[in-house]
Amino acid sequence: MRMSELSTESGVAIPTIKYYLREGLLHQGEQLTATRADYDDSHLHRLRLIRALLEVGRLPVASIKKVVEAVQDESLPIHELLGTAHYALSPAVEPEPTPEWETARAQVDALLDRLDWQVTAEAPARDELAQTVVRMHQLGLTADLAPYAAAAERLVTEVELNTIPYDGPRDAAVEALVLGTVLYGRAFDALRRLAQESESARRFAREAD
Amino acid sequence: MRMSELSTESGVAIPTIKYYLREGLLHQGEQLTATRADYDDSHLHRLRLIRALLEVGRLPVASIKKVVEAVQDESLPIHELLGTAHYALSPAVEPEPTPEWETARAQVDALLDRLDWQVTAEAPARDELAQTVVRMHQLGLTADLAPYAAAAERLVTEVELNTIPYDGPRDAAVEALVLGTVLYGRAFDALRRLAQESESARRFAREAD
Repeated sequence: MRMSELSTESGVAIPTIKYYLREGLLHQGEQLTATRADYDDSHLHRLRLIRALLEVGRLPVASIKKVVEAVQDESLPIHELLGTAHYALSPAVEPEPTPEWETARAQVDALLDRLDWQVTAEAPARDELAQTVVRMHQLGLTADLAPYAAAAERLVTEVELNTIPYDGPRDAAVEALVLGTVLYGRAFDALRRLAQESESARRFAREAD
Repeated sequence: MRMSELSTESGVAIPTIKYYLREGLLHQGEQLTATRADYDDSHLHRLRLIRALLEVGRLPVASIKKVVEAVQDESLPIHELLGTAHYALSPAVEPEPTPEWETARAQVDALLDRLDWQVTAEAPARDELAQTVVRMHQLGLTADLAPYAAAAERLVTEVELNTIPYDGPRDAAVEALVLGTVLYGRAFDALRRLAQESESARRFAREAD
C-alpha cells in the first residue's frame, strides 16, 4: 500500500510515519520508484507496536528504539525479546547507599528465592520493590509481601502468559506483553480499590446489624 | 510537648508545622501562654497522616484538607471516613461522550453487579476502569476483567481489610488505608512483572528442553 493508505489504516499521521522511518523505528517500504514505496501488513503491525509502547507504555523514543531493535533481531530468542520490552517498562530506580536499602533489597531477594521465581539478578523490578519496602519500613508498615506475591503468581500463570502469542509474529507478542502488563495493571489497581470499598461496606453493614 | 519537640519527634520542620496549623490541617495545641502551646500524641498522629497523604498518596493540600476534616468529624461513620480518603486517592477521570465509553462503562457496571460488590454509583474507580476498558477495546484487547476482579477480591477480603485498625484512632485507620492502598499497589505491580519474567523463563526453558 502507499504511505497515504498506511496512514489511514494505522491512524498515524504521514509526518509521524516519516519521522519513524528516519529514526529507524519503522522499517523502509519496498522502493518502487524514486518517489514511491510500497508498505505491507508488517508496517501496520510495527506502527501498532510503536503506538502501544508510546501511548500505553509511555516509553521515550530511545527506549522504543531498543525494543524495536530487539524485535528486528530474529536471532534473539522470544523470551529475551520479551525481557527487553519488559525491562523497558520498569521505572528506573536508583539503589540508595543506606543500611535500610540493603535490608529491604535482601528481603526482596530472599522472598524471590523462597518463591523459586526465575528472575535475573539485574531485574529492575527488584530495586523497584526494594524502594517500596524501604518506604513501608520508614512508615512503620511490616511489608508482608507474601500474599501479594501469591496473588501475582496465580494471575500470571493462570491467565496473563496464556494471552501472549509466543508463536505469532514478534511484533504481536511484544505488543500483547506491553498492553497486558500496563493496561491490566491499571485495571487491577481500580478493581482493588472497588473491592476495598465493597468489603468495607460489608463489614460496616455487619457492624450496624 | 513544645513545637520544637513535635518537630523533632515527627521529622516535620517547624515552618511546615506552622503552615499546617494555619491551613487547619493540624489542630491547635493547648495554649499555655501567649507564646507557648502544648502538643500531644494526637498532633504526632495527625502529622504522620498528613505526610502519608502528601508523600505516599501524592494528594494536593486541598484534598488533604477534605480528608482531615472527615477525620475530625466524629459524627461521620468510619466507613464513610475511609470512603472519603479512598475517593481522594482515585485519579479524576472525565467520562467521554462517546458510544465506546457508554459500552465500556456498562461493561464495568455489569461486572460489579455480577460480583455483587457493594460500590456506590459515584465511585470514581468505575470511570477509571471504564477508561481503561475503552483503551483496551481501541487496541483490540477483549478486556476480560473477571480473573483480575477475583484476584482483587481475594486479596482485599483475606488480607488488606484485616490490616486496618477500624476500632483505633480515626487518624490511624485512614493512614493504614492510604499506605496500604498506595504502597501495596506499587509492590503488587512490581511483583506481577517479576512473576511474568519468571513464568516466561519457565515456559521458555520447557520449550528449550
